[in-house]
Parts: sequence; structure tokens; C-alpha cells
Amino acid sequence: TTDSSTATGWRYRPATPLDDTTLHRIDRWWRAANYLSVGQIYLLDNPLLRTPLTREDVKPRLLGHWGTTPGLTFLYAHANRAIKERDLSTIYITGPGHGGPGLVAGAYLDGTYSETYTDITRDAEGLRRLFRQFSFPGGIPSHVAPETPGSIHEGGELGYALSHAYGAAFDNPDLLVLAVVGDGEAETGPLATSWHSNKFVDPATDGVVLPILHLNGYKIANPTVLARIGDDELRDLMRGYGHTPHEFVAGFDDEDPVSIHRRFAVLLDQVLDEIVAIKERAAAGDTSRPMWPMIIFRTPKGWTCPEYIDGKRAEGSWRAHQVPLASARDTPEHLQVLADWLASYRPEELFDDDGRVDDDIEAITPAGQLRMSDNPHANGGLLMHDLRLPDFREFAVDVPTPGSGLHENTRVLGEWLREVIRLNPTNFRIFGPDETASNRLQAVFGATDKAWNAELHAGEDTDEHLGVDGRVVEMLSEHQCQGWLEGYLLTGRHGLFNCYEAFIHIIDSMLNQHAKWLKVTREIPWRRPISSLNYLLSSHVWRQDHNGFSHQDPGFIDHVVNKKPEVVRVYLPADANTLLSTYDHCLRSRDYVNVVVAGKQPAPQYLTMDEAIAHCTRGLGIWEWAGSEVDGEEPDVVLACAGDVPTLEALAAADLLRRNVPDLRVRVVNVVDLMRLNSESEHPHGLSDRDFDSYFTTDRPVIFAYHGYPWLIHRLTYRRTNHANIHVRGYKEEGTTTTPFDMVMLNDLDRFRLVIDVIDRVPGLAARYAGLRQRMADKRIEARAYTRAHGEDLPEIAEWVWPDATAPAATGDDGSTGINATLSTGGDNE
Amino acid sequence: TTDSSTATGWRYRPATPLDDTTLHRIDRWWRAANYLSVGQIYLLDNPLLRTPLTREDVKPRLLGHWGTTPGLTFLYAHANRAIKERDLSTIYITGPGHGGPGLVAGAYLDGTYSETYTDITRDAEGLRRLFRQFSFPGGIPSHVAPETPGSIHEGGELGYALSHAYGAAFDNPDLLVLAVVGDGEAETGPLATSWHSNKFVDPATDGVVLPILHLNGYKIANPTVLARIGDDELRDLMRGYGHTPHEFVAGFDDEDPVSIHRRFAVLLDQVLDEIVAIKERAAAGDTSRPMWPMIIFRTPKGWTCPEYIDGKRAEGSWRAHQVPLASARDTPEHLQVLADWLASYRPEELFDDDGRVDDDIEAITPAGQLRMSDNPHANGGLLMHDLRLPDFREFAVDVPTPGSGLHENTRVLGEWLREVIRLNPTNFRIFGPDETASNRLQAVFGATDKAWNAELHAGEDTDEHLGVDGRVVEMLSEHQCQGWLEGYLLTGRHGLFNCYEAFIHIIDSMLNQHAKWLKVTREIPWRRPISSLNYLLSSHVWRQDHNGFSHQDPGFIDHVVNKKPEVVRVYLPADANTLLSTYDHCLRSRDYVNVVVAGKQPAPQYLTMDEAIAHCTRGLGIWEWAGSEVDGEEPDVVLACAGDVPTLEALAAADLLRRNVPDLRVRVVNVVDLMRLNSESEHPHGLSDRDFDSYFTTDRPVIFAYHGYPWLIHRLTYRRTNHANIHVRGYKEEGTTTTPFDMVMLNDLDRFRLVIDVIDRVPGLAARYAGLRQRMADKRIEARAYTRAHGEDLPEIAEWVWPDATAPAATGDDGSTGINATLSTGGDNE
Ligand SMILES: Cc1ncc(C[n+]2csc(CCOP(=O)(O)OP(=O)(O)O)c2C)c(N)n1
Ligand SMILES: Cc1ncc(C[n+]2csc(CCOP(=O)(O)OP(=O)(O)O)c2C)c(N)n1
Ligand SMILES: [Mg+2]
Ligand SMILES: [Mg+2]
Repeated sequence: TTDSSTATGWRYRPATPLDDTTLHRIDRWWRAANYLSVGQIYLLDNPLLRTPLTREDVKPRLLGHWGTTPGLTFLYAHANRAIKERDLSTIYITGPGHGGPGLVAGAYLDGTYSETYTDITRDAEGLRRLFRQFSFPGGIPSHVAPETPGSIHEGGELGYALSHAYGAAFDNPDLLVLAVVGDGEAETGPLATSWHSNKFVDPATDGVVLPILHLNGYKIANPTVLARIGDDELRDLMRGYGHTPHEFVAGFDDEDPVSIHRRFAVLLDQVLDEIVAIKERAAAGDTSRPMWPMIIFRTPKGWTCPEYIDGKRAEGSWRAHQVPLASARDTPEHLQVLADWLASYRPEELFDDDGRVDDDIEAITPAGQLRMSDNPHANGGLLMHDLRLPDFREFAVDVPTPGSGLHENTRVLGEWLREVIRLNPTNFRIFGPDETASNRLQAVFGATDKAWNAELHAGEDTDEHLGVDGRVVEMLSEHQCQGWLEGYLLTGRHGLFNCYEAFIHIIDSMLNQHAKWLKVTREIPWRRPISSLNYLLSSHVWRQDHNGFSHQDPGFIDHVVNKKPEVVRVYLPADANTLLSTYDHCLRSRDYVNVVVAGKQPAPQYLTMDEAIAHCTRGLGIWEWAGSEVDGEEPDVVLACAGDVPTLEALAAADLLRRNVPDLRVRVVNVVDLMRLNSESEHPHGLSDRDFDSYFTTDRPVIFAYHGYPWLIHRLTYRRTNHANIHVRGYKEEGTTTTPFDMVMLNDLDRFRLVIDVIDRVPGLAARYAGLRQRMADKRIEARAYTRAHGEDLPEIAEWVWPDATAPAATGDDGSTGINATLSTGGDNE
Repeated sequence: TTDSSTATGWRYRPATPLDDTTLHRIDRWWRAANYLSVGQIYLLDNPLLRTPLTREDVKPRLLGHWGTTPGLTFLYAHANRAIKERDLSTIYITGPGHGGPGLVAGAYLDGTYSETYTDITRDAEGLRRLFRQFSFPGGIPSHVAPETPGSIHEGGELGYALSHAYGAAFDNPDLLVLAVVGDGEAETGPLATSWHSNKFVDPATDGVVLPILHLNGYKIANPTVLARIGDDELRDLMRGYGHTPHEFVAGFDDEDPVSIHRRFAVLLDQVLDEIVAIKERAAAGDTSRPMWPMIIFRTPKGWTCPEYIDGKRAEGSWRAHQVPLASARDTPEHLQVLADWLASYRPEELFDDDGRVDDDIEAITPAGQLRMSDNPHANGGLLMHDLRLPDFREFAVDVPTPGSGLHENTRVLGEWLREVIRLNPTNFRIFGPDETASNRLQAVFGATDKAWNAELHAGEDTDEHLGVDGRVVEMLSEHQCQGWLEGYLLTGRHGLFNCYEAFIHIIDSMLNQHAKWLKVTREIPWRRPISSLNYLLSSHVWRQDHNGFSHQDPGFIDHVVNKKPEVVRVYLPADANTLLSTYDHCLRSRDYVNVVVAGKQPAPQYLTMDEAIAHCTRGLGIWEWAGSEVDGEEPDVVLACAGDVPTLEALAAADLLRRNVPDLRVRVVNVVDLMRLNSESEHPHGLSDRDFDSYFTTDRPVIFAYHGYPWLIHRLTYRRTNHANIHVRGYKEEGTTTTPFDMVMLNDLDRFRLVIDVIDRVPGLAARYAGLRQRMADKRIEARAYTRAHGEDLPEIAEWVWPDATAPAATGDDGSTGINATLSTGGDNE
């Protein structure tokens, strides 16, 4: 069975008393988990210490992180008890994911580890293997990596614990997400803003995130800010973030372990009961924002390790961060300290003679999928349902002849997305940093609101489309959008992130981590495929009319193509039908990162829906109607293009060539799937050399008008036969606030420049068409001068349409008629 | 005169009463600034409205942002009054930098604008030009761009207002930085954590940041979180961030403007007096962390624009964000609304008949460099002093023969940096996200502390090297490190950012913005060069021993080389002397982004200091001692390398070839300045084709062992004659927690694979050396198997040294002797 239906919703703690037996069990579980963690970091062999520890038992390279681990295992132990008592479906996200040994230990004690990795048995030999494999060649990584059952959060790059947690909680009303935040991690920007996620939660239809601030006082080599601002400021901060803080302090004196466990168990019960009360109120209709509880967990870093090592503070200091006993193999003194440390957990009380964990310890383990390491939400593919997708063909724009019409491509997509939302009301969301309308997806608000559980000015027209259960989630934080979406996808749902192209770089590093996660999970048989991470990048480099240079950067594509080819796809649909077909494909795909760049400004349409489908299926295509080649003859030149603005310029260049150099055989190739350019051997979408040669010839000049930085095309094609003849125009980091055509001219991507490129590169033309060449150069001067004089582009350029096209309607997609001062520039807040 | 010595330190407000005349002047200044802002957004002509407004007076494309502007001008007006009264050197950083018109208006009213741009005169024609140029082709950008006098913060990408502000304030004890934070901006991660900057400030030796939260309630198309959490939570949040919040609310009723101005002026005086009191206490020796004041400024978005437009709320709503009257040119109704709006500022009271700003308004303008638009700190190059650099040659490591020694390269650099700090105690800082020791720069703590003004556990050994005036600034936020350093550099100081290579991607987008800033300022004659932005990336992809896959990403280099070639430089020094020489060069350079990637693990040393200097000056070089070519003969193959680990592998391959294929002529080329590979026409450091051909031949196979993603080498060299023969090995996104040699094998960058590559590519070898080829393949199998069995690398690999080298000392740079379990893996917190 692959759902978490063992969970039966939110309930108060049963009235059974919290007896000492249970508290002892918790303590023994904790000791066992800590023992297993220390064992993983240090031991090659002798896992049960049945013989005196020797140098040979210690790993030659001591790799990993102890400091955060005992806190994570402590919380794991207590969560187990609470989950079991309440049948509470729970996943565990640990911001300090470098505490990998602790989570592996937890999964091992849960039994899940041995079920998943059957060679890691529940006996002495299994323990030996468990220890040995950790941070060991051919073994497992040091972090809470995809290999760790129960993980959706590796935590290698710090900062995303809470955004992942909330992403997991959205639309999972019965799920509890325990989210540990490192106090060092809490200093990162993404984490600092992610506390505000609680303003985007519907207490009725979403799950619950319980943040636990792991205030162990230190990071790698420094104290942490939050540990050193005093209790009052810290409490204020948490309240300011919208939480009710609960504090727990332990480990700094010689309090009896059972007393410590009792205090924490009581606190956890109180917090969980508070949550149940909120849930009850929500079920009764009060979905206003509660002050959700959170826990400040102040315990020593490296808790339970030797207090001093070599005379320096270890437990309760940053020195415990990684491997506090670095010379355990090298000096007899350190070896003895390690032996004593291990012995302090009294393993003989925890494991039987065969090395099996004592049954009594396991008595606190929840059953089946209630084990955090076995919760199917943490292997989201298990729970994923395919989206019900409306037929995108029904949303096609009419294209009577190529180049006709005038549509805002993303606005058309928005109409389809509205229906996607309607058909999938609980497992599809759109995320964006306050740009969903600016990116022209506002049709979606016909079907849903923007999630909002802060104050509402009800009835005022400032507060349109805001609702506690909206499917669009907008916060001015690209980090939050990315983190939420990742958490949502990793738990088996679907979505997309719409963003200004330039600012998607803000999450470059998060993309890295997600792409790495996907790369690894594809190699892990028990991890089921999840829905792809879909980007819709609009307000792109060529049309940042209101903003200028700071908003112009098409380099996310370059960043993405550095990732494993198996997981990345890049699409540059040039019109609305192509965009629809592309996006339908993206929402059906699994385990990829799909980057789609699309325009939001009124633009001509080229392909009918049938043509668009064929074009997208091919990934690229010759647009015969645009070229002047004839069957049976080789072309003289290939005009290639990718992206809406480059396509327009390439077509305008083709038109100029047709009229001015009638005998020239021009082939126009449009590329929608950029990875087609790559070699077959490099990328699964790569064209065979034969296909590539057929499209791009083996010896004719190729003038390539490309959306982004031009060298990417070279990087993708350098192995192709005709590479030496490929000449790319693209964005070369020139820009400012100016007209659309001035932008393309600034970067030499304009139609006139492309014609000049053709003249310069097709043998024989330069001599015969010097006049045309000069006229083209003059046109650039004229076009530039016109913008300086009038503040807009030459009408013949702004209004240019493909000659065979029916004239574009003067109507915007929003129904506005006539020319107006913003139709062609698109204000951001419409 | 180019210093701000007009400022005379911190003083309480003089006892002169705040009279109505002054308040009226403030109001008139504000009205003038707002009028000038609206004019910039909408008007082509008729700047003084001396004739009725016509359609032709309105710009054809309405671009820009009104919503934030009136708040920014309001604060500007009040700052002027306070600065003048107190002679307070002040710069103004506006997070919502899209309020460009407001800052241009301020500079115009200051007179600075006309001094800087002499064609924008202080008369009607100057006003016409001022209006017309805004967001106009050939004019100025819409944001507070480098073109704006007084700006160090464009604000295009939101989130960095406070980190820039604190960077500017560090070591400028007399400077006030007014820092406006957009309430939307406040939702970004970087901004959310940047409030904590106050824990890194020394009240005695640093300047003061006064944060003003611009709570205008809305962002592009949504309410903001902080505007909708209620006053209590917001106050708690600010207190939690360590601030004393002061609240100001205005604009929501019909309060008389003079009353509004009086209230704000009183509040500002109170806040500034609070700051003076803190400064006095600090001067008297109390440098403990105060609760610095901040202002919550709650006013309507678009304040003073039409309340409703087309029946929808405009003032006080997100609709005012950009251009609230989009159809001003298109409909007579909107044109009239615009005319009325402009008239509401009563321009006839503000400008004389010639269009000159009324003298009375200018009476609140501070003198000379006390004008915020003329403060030299905002044109940092004016104040910059060259660093006093210790002679790096004195820090050279001894290299008796190539390949000998064993040093941690960054540790050696740390020794030199310690002296840089000693010699430049007030204008050089090192920033890092808790990794300065991990990156092995700890020698610097011989000269300074880490800045820390949160609680200190004095005398405890957990709190080593922490001090309120430390020159090293560590917070676990790459965003903060980057933002602080940028602010520090932009105000004329020097520094570097040390970071794990993988996580530097966190600031990709910030790098974009800074590189764009540099690109533009190089074209602005009045902007003086500033010190380069220097990165030291360590704990790099090949030696993330403790962490694994999530910590492996060398792609920042790829990201950086997309920026304008004039501003970017990338260096991969392979040993300590080369690193010293490189970094000396970087700290002397101006207006660049220098990326230096260097190893921190014990590694062999290749070049004497003299050789290193020559090598760095060339940027690359043939290492004749490593190759087997002989003068007068062409080499058979070129083994190229860049980066410390690839260099080691290439040398080991050269050694294998020397011993196994004695007749092969191998040339070894090491590249330290990556941009040398680029064409002369593409990058200022690019080699001429002649030089390139000389190093890399025109027809021999080149096997290139590269530190990062291999295709970057192709992207840099695709125009070179011999490109088709260049075969690159690098990181191809394979990794986990494993041994160093397993890592290079996983990515086919190992010595054995390089030998196989040579055999495969040098004509004739494949047939003759099939045996060697098989032995190499077998070696890989053996090496891998050894790691699986022993958890470490084959001794013959781990201990390999260049055959002519004196044996490496078994001593670490930290004085440790003998082999120990971590010497070769390097714990993070040492
Ligand atoms: C974004 C990011 N920057 C830097 C690091 C390097 N790093 C690894 S662990 C660590 C300290 C973490 O401290 P904390 O969050 O308090 O975790 P804990 O004390 O629980 O180990 C740092 C800086 C990282 N992993 N991620
Ligand atoms: C990081 C980033 N994401 C998105 C944007 C697009 N954007 C421009 S202005 C704006 C809203 C800003 O709101 P706020 O900070 O409140 O400024 P104000 O209301 O004063 O205009 C957004 C989202 C941006 N500039 N930067
Ligand atoms: Mg910590
Ligand atoms: Mg705002």
C-alpha cells in the first residue's frame, strides 16, 4: 500500500500517562541512535565493541559531521513516541543535513533501512556494513542525501529547510512536517524569510509545519547570531515571524536524562495539542492565521561527546561540528577517548548478542508508513497522480497564414493553465515572486486566488484575487518560490515557477541542488519518478522595456545546461501554439528540469496548432514558407533562430533578402528545443550528426539569431561538421532602458545586421551587394536616430509583419482596442 | 576637494526651533521633487505647463515607476533639512531603486545634476531635457543606476539595500547611511537576513545605518506581507532584529501637509539624537551593541497621485506601482487627469518664469559635498587609497625542485593577508560565510578578530578571535558577504570574499548586478575606478572530501565569463607562489571581478617565486621540466592543465608517459589566467592566434585537464586553429563523498585516463601501445577497488610525487607532524 492512510488525522494526545518506561525507552533509543552515529563516523569494524577498540577498527579517513547529530536524533526519538501515540503522518526535514549519520541511524532503528538496503541487516554484520559504508568510497554520502530513506531534503546547501517543509505541507492537510532549522542556517537569507511562509498556509486544507530552531549555539567555527541575541530578542523575532515560541533548554547541567526527556515530551505534547486545537478551529471554519507554535531547542552542539578534547571545549562548541576526535586512529590517547565515548552509550544495553537492536527500544517505533523513514510523502513519486490536462489544442490561437495575428504568448498559456488549475484543484500550484500578472498569466485568476493568509482588506479593490486557499502562491522571494515548489514536487505534486528571466539567477544554486537530487534519485531504484521542475521565464532580456540593464540576463540557460544532460531541457517557443504544445509536454514529464522562455508582449503568430505540434515534436524545423530554397537545390545560407524576438528578426531578415537578393536560396530553421543542437552522445535530445547536417548543411554559412549569450550555441555545436560556418548573434551584455528594436540593435541581433551577416558570409555576395549592405547599415543609423527623436521605434519596424500575413489585429488579448502607449511595452502590474 | 571633511561628526540638533517656514520649504521641496518625477515619467515637452497639456507633450511610451517615488522624495526632503542642520555626511540608499525619477529629481534640486550633466540646465530647457531623457532611447535608465549622482545602489534586483548600506558604513565612523527598504523587497531572503547586520557593527569605528521600512503596503500586484501582519507583530519583528522601531503613519487622511512634515521632522530629529547618544556612549568606550533605531514609514503607495483612476483605487494601491495613467496620451480623459495631477503640485509656485527652481526651496539644500547626491562616498573611487601591500615575495614557499614541498596553498596566502590587514587597518576587510578557517586563512587571526557585536562569552575558548572591530566579517550568508563587500568597495575600500566554490553560486545574480554596475561606470567619466571585487574560492569541487556531491560545482567560472569581458578575470593558480603572485595582482587591480580558485589541501609546489611571477605575468606557460620535448622538434602532444588538481594529474600522466613511451615528445602547458585562452578580439587578456598556436600547436592533439566543466574550454577556444584537436577533461557532474582520486576517476580526469587519451589521440600510438593502454585501464580498476577495500587511495597514488622532486615533508603547514587521518582531508573547522 502506497499511501499514508494509516494516518487518521489530527487528535489530542490520548489520556494515557507519560510513564517512565516510555521515557526510558526514548532515552535508550536516543543512545542507540547516537551510538550508531558515532559508529558511522569513526568505525570500520568492531561495531559492538565486543573486543577492545584498536587502531585498525578506526576509519583511515574520518569524514562527516557529529555536532548537529545528537540534536537531530533526540528530536527523532521524541517524534517517534508522539507519532505512535497519535497516528500522525509525519515527515522529518533537517536543515543541517550534514547530520546524515543521525537520520541513517533513525531509519536503521525504524527497520526501514534494512528493508530498503537488504544487505544492511539487523545484526552485527549489518552494523559493521552500516558503519563502514558511511562517507566511504562506494558507500553512502555524508549528508541526508537521496539515498537516505525518509529524506526529501539533503541539506547540503543550507537555507531551504522551511521552504521545503511548507512546500511539502501545502495541500497535505493531514501531514505534519517537523522542520529543524540550524541556528547557523537561520542566518542565511532564504531561511530568514522563509519563516513568513505561515502567511501562505490554509489551516484547513494544508498540513502543518512545526519549525524547531536547533539552537546549538555554533556553526562551523563561530557562534551563531540567534544564540547570542538574548532570549527576549529571539522571542520577539519569532513572534514577529508569526509564531508562538516554546523554549526548551537542556544539556548544560547534570540533569537526569529521564527528566530531560520528560520535559521535552511534555512540551512536544503541548505543542502538538496546540496544533490540534488550531486544526479543529479551522475545521470549524476559522481559517484565519493562527500564531503557529515553534520550538526553540537550545542544547549543546555535539551533545554527549567528550566535554573536552586536548584541553579544549568540544561538547557545546563549534569544535564538535565535524569530527571532534580527528586523531582517533593516530594517537592512543584519542583512540581511548573514542572508546570511552562509544562506551558511554552503553551499547551492551542496546543491542543483543547478535547485534540486534533490543525490542524494547523499538517499542517506540511507529508502525509501517507512520515511520518517518517510510512515510510515502518522502518518496513523492509513490503518491503522485498524473495531472488531468485539458486538451491544449482547444486553446490554440488562429493562424490563418504564418506571421499573422498578434498575441501575448504567455497570456494564451494562462488560459490553458486556468483549466489545468480547475481540473487539478489539490495537486497543482503556480509559484511566482509577485509577477504572475506581470508575466501575463492573469487568466488563472478566473479559476483561483493567490494564497494569502495575512490581513485582508475585504471588499477593497486593492485585494483582488486573494484567498486563503489560492492555487497561485506569490511572495517576493524567488528563493521561497523555488523552495516551495521543490517541496511540493518532491512530495508528489505538480507545479510551475513563473519568473522574470533575469532574476531566476537568484536560485541558480538551488537549481544545482535540485538537479543533483534528480540525477542521484534516477539511479536509486526505490525512488519513484516525480514531476519535473518547470520554469516559465518571461519578461525576458529583449523586452524589459520598463527596467533596462539590470533586468537583462538570459544566462540561466547556460547555467542549466551545465547540469547532467539527462535531467535538463530548454525550450524557446516562438509563438503561442508552440508554447502551449511545449508546456503540455513539460507538465507530463518526470524527473526533469524544464526551462521554458516565452514572451509576454504582443507578437506575431507563426504556426497553426498542427504545425506547432509537429514542430515541437521535431524540436526544430525548416520553415519553408519563410525561406527561399527550392526542392532539389542546396540552400546558399541557413538563417537559424531560437526565441521569439530572434525569430522575428530572422524572419524580417529573410523578407529583406527575398526582396533584395531574389536569387539567394535562404533556408530558415527555427529551434524550439535547444538541446536538439547538442550531439546525440551528449544529450538525449541531441540530433544525430546526419540530421544536424541535413538541417544546417555541411558547408553553407549558418547565421544563427539566438535568444541568449551567443557562445552557448557554439558550446552545443562545436562537434558538428559545419561548426566553423556557424555565426551566432545573441545577447552580448549591452542594454539599457530603451525601445525593443534599439535593444536588438545594441546587440547586433537586428534584421539589418543579419542581412549584413549574410552578405558577408555567403561567398560572392559581398562584391555584388555592397549597395544593399550599405543600405542596411544606413537603416540601423536611421532606426537609432528615430528612437532618439521620437522615443519609439520606426513605424516600419514596429509594424512590420511577414508579407504574406493577414494584418495583425489592433486588439490586445485583453480586449483593449486601438493603439495605446503601453500596449507594446506592457506595464508590470497588469 | 574630494573628501567629505565638511562633515564634522555627530551632534545633537541645534536648539533652533523647527519653524513653519522650514516645514513649508520642505513641503515645497517635496512638491517640486514629485512634480519633476511625474514630469520625467510622462512628459516629452511643456515642462512647466505654461500652455495646456496636449497629447503631443506626452511620451509615446510610458516607462518607469511612480509608486515608490513620493516616499523616496519625502525622505530626501527631510534628510536635507537634517543634514544641513547637523552637517551630517549622509548617503542615501533606496532599495526600491525603480524609484529612479525621485532620486534624479533630488539631485536636480540639489544642483548636482546640472553640475554633472551640464546640458541639463537649471531652466525651462533643462527641465525639458531632464524629462525627456528619462527612460528614453539615448537617455537615462529608469532606475537609480550608476548614471544617477549619489547612487551606489541601483536597486534593480531587490534585496540588497541593507547589506550595501552596512558595507558602506563599515569603517566610515562619521557617515550616516539612510537606507530605504521596500516592503516588498523586505520579503526577499537577502533582505530578511540583512537586518542582522547590526551585530557586526562597531559603534565607535563604523558609521551608522538608519533603516527606513517603506511600508507603502504593496509591491507590483499584491499587498506586502509586512504591511499585513499588524503593528504588534511588525514591532516584534523589528525588535527581534535588534532595532528600536519608530513608527510614522501619514497620507491616509486629510491631515495638513505642514502637520505631516512637522511630525516627521520631529521624529527624524528624535531618531538622529538617539543615534548621537549611542555614538557618544561609544566614544566614551561603550561599544556594546545598542538597539539602533529604525523607522517604519507607513504611507500610501503612489502618495499624491490621483486617488482613483477609471474608478479603481490608484493612490494607496499596487496600481500605482508603475505608470498609473497608462493612457495619458491616448484618451482625453486620462490626459486631463494627468494635467490635473501635475497641476496639483502647483508648479507655478515652485519654478520661476525661466524655469529655475525657486531659491527658497533650495534653502533646505545642504552645501557642497554634504548634498547626498554629491557625497564622495557614493563615488568611492574619489576617496580610495591604494592598499599598502607587503612584498608577497617574502611569503614565498621554498621550491628547491619542481614538485617538491607540501603546502596548503590558501594557508600560505593567509600569512600574506595577515600582513595586508596589519598594514591597512581601516580600509581592507575579508568577508566569508563562516569558512575563513575552513578555507585555511586562519593566519589572519594573528592580526585581527572576526567582527562580532552580539553576546560574547568572554574568556571562554569557544569565543576565539571575536571582537567588535575585527577585520574579518563572517556571517552564514553568502548574500551578506557579497552585499557588504560590494558596499565596502563602492565606497572606496578594498576586500575579498572567501567562499566554498560550490556555494558562491548563491550570489550569481548579485555578481550579475555588480558586473553590470562596473560595465556601466567604466563608460561614465565622472565615476572613478574602484577596487576590484575579489573572490577566493576554495574547498573546491575536487576536494570536498567531507561533503560530497552537493558541495561540488565549479560552474561559477562559467557564470562569470558571460559578463562583459572588460570586467572579468579568472585565475587558477596551481601552487602557493602562483597564488601569492595572483592575489597581489588582484588586490592592485581596479573595476574588475577577479575569480581565484585555489586549493586548501596539502599539495606539491611547482614554481619558485621568480618562476611564479613570470608564469603569472604570462598567464600561462610551458613547464619544460615536466615535458619531454626537445628544442628544435615539434611536440607530439600537448598536455594542458588549469587548476591544482588537474595539474597534479597532468604531471602524473606526463611522468607515466615519460617512463612508458620514452620517444614521445610531450609538452606540458599550465594555464593560470584562464582568459588567455580566449581570442584577443574577445577578451583583453586573450592570446593572439600566433601566440596560441605557438603554445598549443596548429595540429597536435591537446589533452586539456581542466578544473571545471570541460565545455568552457571549448567555448573559449572554438575560434583557434587547433580547436578540433583539443580534447578536454573536467568535471562532468559526477561525485559523492569519496576519496580525492576516486573523484577524479569518476570524472575521467585522472592520470591514467589522460595517458589513455594521449594514446588514443596521438597518431600511431594506439597500435603500438595497446599494452600500456590496458595497463592504464587496469590501474583505474585497481585504484577504485583499493578505495572500496581500504577507504583511502592507493599509496602509490596518494604519495606520488614528481620524480625529480625532493620528497614532500610530512609536516603540515600548521606544524603538525607525521601522517594523520585528517591531514589529507582537512576538517572544516580548523
Ligand atoms: C549556504 C551554505 N553556506 C555554507 C555552508 C558550509 N557549512 C556547512 S555546515 C555549516 C554550519 C552550519 O551551522 P548550523 O546551521 O548551526 O548547523 P549545526 O550547528 O546544527 O551543525 C556551514 C557554514 C553550507 N553548507 N551552506
Ligand atoms: C529580486 C527581484 N524580484 C522581482 C523583482 C520585480 N519587481 C520589481 S519592483 C517589485 C515590487 C517591489 O515592491 P516594494 O519593495 O514594496 O517597492 P515599492 O512598493 O516601494 O515600489 C518587484 C517584485 C525585482 N525587481 N527584484
Ligand atoms: Mg548550530
Ligand atoms: Mg511597497
